Amino acid sequence: MSYVTDDKLVILGAAGAIGSNMVQAALTLGMTPNVCMYDPFEKGLQGAAEEIYHCAFPGAKVTWTTDIATALQGAKYFVSSGGAPRKEGMTREDLLKGNAEIAAQLGKDIKAYCPDLKFGVIIFNPADITGLTTLVHSGLAPSKIGTLAALDSTRLQTALAQHFGVAQDEVTGCRTYGGHGEMMAVFAGTTKVAGTPLTDLIGTDKLTNEQWEEIKGHVKQGGKKIIQLRGRSSFQSPSHQSLLMVKAVMDGQGYPWPSGLYVNDPANGFNQIMMAMETTLDSNGLHGKMPSGSEADIAALSESYQHLCKLRDEVIEMGVLPPLDQWSTVNPNLA
Amino acid sequence: MSYVTDDKLVILGAAGAIGSNMVQAALTLGMTPNVCMYDPFEKGLQGAAEEIYHCAFPGAKVTWTTDIATALQGAKYFVSSGGAPRKEGMTREDLLKGNAEIAAQLGKDIKAYCPDLKFGVIIFNPADITGLTTLVHSGLAPSKIGTLAALDSTRLQTALAQHFGVAQDEVTGCRTYGGHGEMMAVFAGTTKVAGTPLTDLIGTDKLTNEQWEEIKGHVKQGGKKIIQLRGRSSFQSPSHQSLLMVKAVMDGQGYPWPSGLYVNDPANGFNQIMMAMETTLDSNGLHGKMPSGSEADIAALSESYQHLCKLRDEVIEMGVLPPLDQWSTVNPNLA
Repeated sequence: MSYVTDDKLVILGAAGAIGSNMVQAALTLGMTPNVCMYDPFEKGLQGAAEEIYHCAFPGAKVTWTTDIATALQGAKYFVSSGGAPRKEGMTREDLLKGNAEIAAQLGKDIKAYCPDLKFGVIIFNPADITGLTTLVHSGLAPSKIGTLAALDSTRLQTALAQHFGVAQDEVTGCRTYGGHGEMMAVFAGTTKVAGTPLTDLIGTDKLTNEQWEEIKGHVKQGGKKIIQLRGRSSFQSPSHQSLLMVKAVMDGQGYPWPSGLYVNDPANGFNQIMMAMETTLDSNGLHGKMPSGSEADIAALSESYQHLCKLRDEVIEMGVLPPLDQWSTVNPNLA
Repeated sequence: MSYVTDDKLVILGAAGAIGSNMVQAALTLGMTPNVCMYDPFEKGLQGAAEEIYHCAFPGAKVTWTTDIATALQGAKYFVSSGGAPRKEGMTREDLLKGNAEIAAQLGKDIKAYCPDLKFGVIIFNPADITGLTTLVHSGLAPSKIGTLAALDSTRLQTALAQHFGVAQDEVTGCRTYGGHGEMMAVFAGTTKVAGTPLTDLIGTDKLTNEQWEEIKGHVKQGGKKIIQLRGRSSFQSPSHQSLLMVKAVMDGQGYPWPSGLYVNDPANGFNQIMMAMETTLDSNGLHGKMPSGSEADIAALSESYQHLCKLRDEVIEMGVLPPLDQWSTVNPNLA
């Protein structure tokens, strides 16, 4: 069995459903044998580690610890699912306060223990805000911290494939941007269904305007639907897709979905925020650009941005993020 | 993304923890894009399928159904975790009656819907008995139905690595045989620790006889320990290892651990049973031979066999398996 790299990958929240799945999936994907499992819940962490040992991945050197310094020391990559989970009926925003504080501490720990980090992914909700908070406090360059945003796009792909009765792969170019919440911007212009532009199908018998609105609603409620069906938050798809983000930096082979990244683009009206944009992800980390779309698409993106600004400003008021004009002092890479 | 084969792989019990993990892991391992998810629990099954769709595995054609005929039609491979789960405090044997009936029906369904099956793995407990019951009723050759037995050996490897403070890979040749239950036979003679035969270490300061007995106890209680630590049965290691068994048949690249298989070897005193022996697993399916070991090892194997015979005979008394002398009528491959 060969691995892409020997670099240390830390899974934060490794006792949980997403985290323990990630350890297994990272080894199955052949990313690195050097995986460290961190979680404050020692008993569950030990149990999750034992399961991984019983998998007997050739060459694996999996460690576990409840000490964050030990976990992050020398880390080159991490994924953190280590927030409080969303329960049925909660919005992502309900989680804001507690998880923003966890994110701020994570950022400080990164600054203290692994300033040479190559790439980290934040996936605990609301990820746009926890990712932003982690980045600000970490002192790292914006290319090195991202958030998982792909699931909205893959849910759009799934819903369109089911509507049209085609293979999932035949629905291409699905793109959602902005926040990973109910205010996300679902773009229509980039998607094709078996080669036909989605914009040529919307408003026809094949996909009425009502049906399209319904599909967009499904996408926005995709996470809630999993909770209703399975009785628990999704954990397999966030695990798989966030690891593919890390793998793209490890092997430089690219990543096909949008990611959440730090955006400071006054020309387009987006300032000091983290959200999904059109992104490239490779051995240089994460880089974004303004997506193209119809006027309605861009308006939806602006609305999503405004919603995120409100959440960000709440976190500033809480004292968990510094005022906007002090970010460059805390993190010179944000100057 | 390339896959080893396009053959249909059916995951039975796909709404459960093991089954849903297997669907993700089979696609991550690149086994086949053609995965069918079966479970009688429709809501959970749909939720598990949606999660897999949101993973967006390139080229995947994943279907789900609550109809066993649809599931098995045209299947070339399956893994079944579709029994009742073991709860804290239950022994595997407590599950005997209900799961043996499920296994008998599965065997009949295989006979009816996928007589061209290449290989199937049974992992619901007590797997030695459910695997045997499935095989008898399936009408298939013994090389085509196996049970997962590796976890006892990987648990032995884990426990020895932890005791000696060496990398898991440095503990080689771990072997447990016989039943996958508390009566398993833990062999000492094949194992080396960093190149030193385990038999040279047992009874020394490095591994006292008491410590060795304790480690054997840990191995036998390995599944219970996971339940105590995680609050649930192990699901990641059974998923991963049972898929590697199927992959060995798909790609012919071999499998490094013992498997449970049908044994009818009067010369060695083992008749009409399914249990772990020294096995090869490749594109021809599963083949076994008598393991070599010390007198004590062989005595432990015989004891494990006797225990399995009692369970088998209980299932015969229940009418779920035919009397021994009628097996060849039900399954001519067992003549």
